[in-house]
Amino acid sequence: MTAAPAMERSEGTDALAPLASALFAELRRLGGDGVGITRDSYGPGEDAAIAHVAEVARAEGIEVGFDAARNLVLSLPGEAPGPYVLCGSHLDSVPQGGNYDGAAGVVAGLLCLVAMRRAGVRPPRPVRVIGLRGEESAWFGKAYMGSSALFGLLTPDDLAAAHRRSGRSLGECMRDCGAAVDRIAAGERLLDPAEVAAYLELHIEQGPVMVARDLRTAVVTGIRGNIRHKRIVCRGEAGHSGAVPRWLRRDAVFAVAELLSRLDEHWRALLERGLDLVVTCGIIATNPDEHAISRIPGEVGFSFEVRSQSRDTLEAFYHLMRTECAGIAAQRKVEFAFDRRVDSPPARMDEAWVRRLVDLSGRLGLPTETVPSGAGHDAAVFANAGIPSAMVFVRNDNGSHNPREAMEMADFMAATGLLYRALLEPA
Amino acid sequence: MTAAPAMERSEGTDALAPLASALFAELRRLGGDGVGITRDSYGPGEDAAIAHVAEVARAEGIEVGFDAARNLVLSLPGEAPGPYVLCGSHLDSVPQGGNYDGAAGVVAGLLCLVAMRRAGVRPPRPVRVIGLRGEESAWFGKAYMGSSALFGLLTPDDLAAAHRRSGRSLGECMRDCGAAVDRIAAGERLLDPAEVAAYLELHIEQGPVMVARDLRTAVVTGIRGNIRHKRIVCRGEAGHSGAVPRWLRRDAVFAVAELLSRLDEHWRALLERGLDLVVTCGIIATNPDEHAISRIPGEVGFSFEVRSQSRDTLEAFYHLMRTECAGIAAQRKVEFAFDRRVDSPPARMDEAWVRRLVDLSGRLGLPTETVPSGAGHDAAVFANAGIPSAMVFVRNDNGSHNPREAMEMADFMAATGLLYRALLEPA
Repeated sequence: MTAAPAMERSEGTDALAPLASALFAELRRLGGDGVGITRDSYGPGEDAAIAHVAEVARAEGIEVGFDAARNLVLSLPGEAPGPYVLCGSHLDSVPQGGNYDGAAGVVAGLLCLVAMRRAGVRPPRPVRVIGLRGEESAWFGKAYMGSSALFGLLTPDDLAAAHRRSGRSLGECMRDCGAAVDRIAAGERLLDPAEVAAYLELHIEQGPVMVARDLRTAVVTGIRGNIRHKRIVCRGEAGHSGAVPRWLRRDAVFAVAELLSRLDEHWRALLERGLDLVVTCGIIATNPDEHAISRIPGEVGFSFEVRSQSRDTLEAFYHLMRTECAGIAAQRKVEFAFDRRVDSPPARMDEAWVRRLVDLSGRLGLPTETVPSGAGHDAAVFANAGIPSAMVFVRNDNGSHNPREAMEMADFMAATGLLYRALLEPA
Repeated sequence: MTAAPAMERSEGTDALAPLASALFAELRRLGGDGVGITRDSYGPGEDAAIAHVAEVARAEGIEVGFDAARNLVLSLPGEAPGPYVLCGSHLDSVPQGGNYDGAAGVVAGLLCLVAMRRAGVRPPRPVRVIGLRGEESAWFGKAYMGSSALFGLLTPDDLAAAHRRSGRSLGECMRDCGAAVDRIAAGERLLDPAEVAAYLELHIEQGPVMVARDLRTAVVTGIRGNIRHKRIVCRGEAGHSGAVPRWLRRDAVFAVAELLSRLDEHWRALLERGLDLVVTCGIIATNPDEHAISRIPGEVGFSFEVRSQSRDTLEAFYHLMRTECAGIAAQRKVEFAFDRRVDSPPARMDEAWVRRLVDLSGRLGLPTETVPSGAGHDAAVFANAGIPSAMVFVRNDNGSHNPREAMEMADFMAATGLLYRALLEPA
C-alpha cells in the first residue's frame, strides 16, 4: 500500500454503487417485516444485519471484530497503531421503519474501507468502521445504548429496562448478543476517548428540510437532545359510561386529552418566540384488559418526548409539562404517575471537522450549507465524551421511522465520496 | 296451588336470602378473572353463569328452557296459557366488571319463582324469568344482542361484528351457543310482543345518584339511548419525532387530543343549558405494531359514545362531533375514518307499571322516588318493541362496569320483595 493522499490514484467509492445497492437490498430482505423494516436493538433483527455486513467485509478482505458492547468494528488489515478515526452509524431500526436510517452510515463506512483496500490506499490516520447497536429508543425506551455502553453511561435502570415485546431486560438481551454486561453494569469505560481522533457519521436526514432546500448532502452543526418518559400513567376511576354524570367523573382519557392539547398550545406559542422545540406523544393507550366503549376509562398510559438543541428549553418545557399535569390532576381528580425520566443531552459538532467537511464539499461540487440535526444520533454521545465528532446528512424524502424513506443512491454515493475524501485528508 | 293474591299466605322472598347469597357466590367464583368478573357475551363466561342458574332452578322444581336466541327462560311447572309477565335481566358482564350488573335481575326473578313454588302460590298472570345473553357492548361493540335478536333487530353488520379477543363474528359465537342464527339473520321475529304482558327488570344502579340521595330502591322512569362508534381511526403521517417541525407534522395523537378536548368543552356547555348528556371515549390506542416514543404517531384508534334520554340531543351532539372532526382534519391535515354508527334509542317506561311499582313501594316502606336510568338496559328494547316495561333499581356504591360494585344484600332482598309482590298483584 502507498501513503495518502492517494485520491488521485483511486477512483474512490464511485465504482462501488453496485456493492452498495446489493448491501441495501440484502439488508432490506433480512429486516423486512411485511410492512417496513424491523431490526430490534440487541436482538435478532440487529444480529442479522451485523452478520451480513461482517460477511461482505470479510469477503473484501476487511478485518472483522467486535468491541466489548458487541458493536461491529471493521478495519483494514495491518492497521497502524495510534489514534484512529471512527466512522459509522447504527444497524438497528424502529419497528416498521425504513432501510436507510442507520444502515446507510455503516454501509458508507464499509464502502470507504473497500475502496481503500481495492485501491491499495492507506489513510493518513487509521480508520475503523463501527456498526453500532441499540441506537433506537423504540425497543427499550432508551436510545444510544451501544455507544453509551462504550463510555460506561448505562445505568442499572437502563439495563433493567424491558424490551417492548419480550419484556426481557436490556442487560439480558445484551448478554445474549455477547456484550460484556458485567463490565457495562459496573460503569466501566470500554473505549478510551483518547484513542479516537474523531467520530464521523453519515446518516439520512430524518426530516423534510433538505428536500425543501434542495440539498443533496449537508454538514451537521449540532444535534438536538431530548427528555423522555417512556410511560406516564394517568389514573382516574373506571365506571359505567352512562350512569356517572360529568361532575362526578374521573375520566383519564379526557384528562390526558386536555394535557396534550395544552402542551400543543404551549409548543405553538414557544415556537413563535423563536425557540427550538419539538414535542411528541408517540404512544397512547387505555388498558386493553379493562377498557370498553361503555366504560369510563380509568387508566391511560402515554409516552412523552421533548427535543431541543437547548438544554434550557428542554428543562423549561419539561417543567411546564409537570406543572400542567399537577393542575389537571387537581382539577379532574386524577393522578399522573411517571416512570424514570430519561435524558439525552444536546451536542455540538466539532468546528474544525465541520469546516473541513464544508470545504471538501465545495471542492467536490456538493452543497456547502450546514443544517442542525433535529433527530438525535450516536454522534452526540461521542461528542459529549469529548471526541471531535461530525456528521454528513444525505437528503431523504418522506422522513424516517417509517417504511417510505426515499434516499436516492446517487445522493448516498456523493455523501460516501465526501466521507471517503475526508478520511484521506491529511490530519 | 291456590289463586293469587296470596302474599299473606307466603313469607315471600325474604327467607331466600341464603339462596341468593349462595347464587351470587357461585356466580362470582365462576366468572372471577383474578381482578373482577368476566362473563363474555355469547361465550363461555356467559354459558357458565346460565348453566349454574339453570341447575339451581331445576333443583327447585322450576322448568328450564331456552328461546331461539338461546336466552335462558325459567317458568313454574304447569304454567297457564295466555300472555305472561317476563321478568329478568342479563347474565354477561364487561371484562373485569362486577358480579351484580345483570346477574342481580336474573337471581331476583329466580327467587320470585322459587318463593311461589315453595309456597304453592300461583300468580294472576303467568310469570317467566329470562336470563338474557349479550347485553354488554364491550365484546362485540353492540349492546342488547340477546333481546334484539328476539325482535329481529340484529342486522347483518351486527352479526358480522368481531369479538374483541377472538375476532370471531357474533353470528358464529351465537351459533356456537345454540342460537337459531339463520332465523336471526333473516330478521325473523322470534318473540311475539303480544304474548308478553309486561317486561320487568331489576338492576343495580350503575351511577352514584341513589347512594347520594339515600334511596335503597327506586323505580325507573326512562332509559338513556346512545349513539356509538366502536372505532374511529385518525390517520396522519408517521415520521421521526425529532426531525419534522410542527408546521409540517400530521400528528394523529395531537389531532385526537384536540377533538376530545373540544367535545369535553361542548359537553360542559350543553350541561349548563340543562341538556341530558354524557360523552365517553372509553378506548384509545396508537397502533402497537408501529408506534414508538420517537415516532410521530401516524394513526390513533378510539371509540366514541354519546348518551341522552333525548333523541334530539343525541343527534345534535353526534353532528357536532362529525363537524369537529371535519374541522380538525382540514386544519391538521389528518383524516378521520368512521366504522358503522350504532344506535340504541332512548325508551320510556310504562306509566301504569311505574305507578303500580311506586304505590307498592310506599306500601312496603320503600322509597317512592323515581329516577331516570343513565345506563342502557334490555328493558329499552322490550319497551321499544311495544311491550309495557318497567325497572326497579337497587342502590349500589362505586358504580358499575368495575369490580368494586357494592350492592348490599338487604337492599337487593327489599327490591326482590317489591318485584315479587308486583308479580302477585291482580292484573
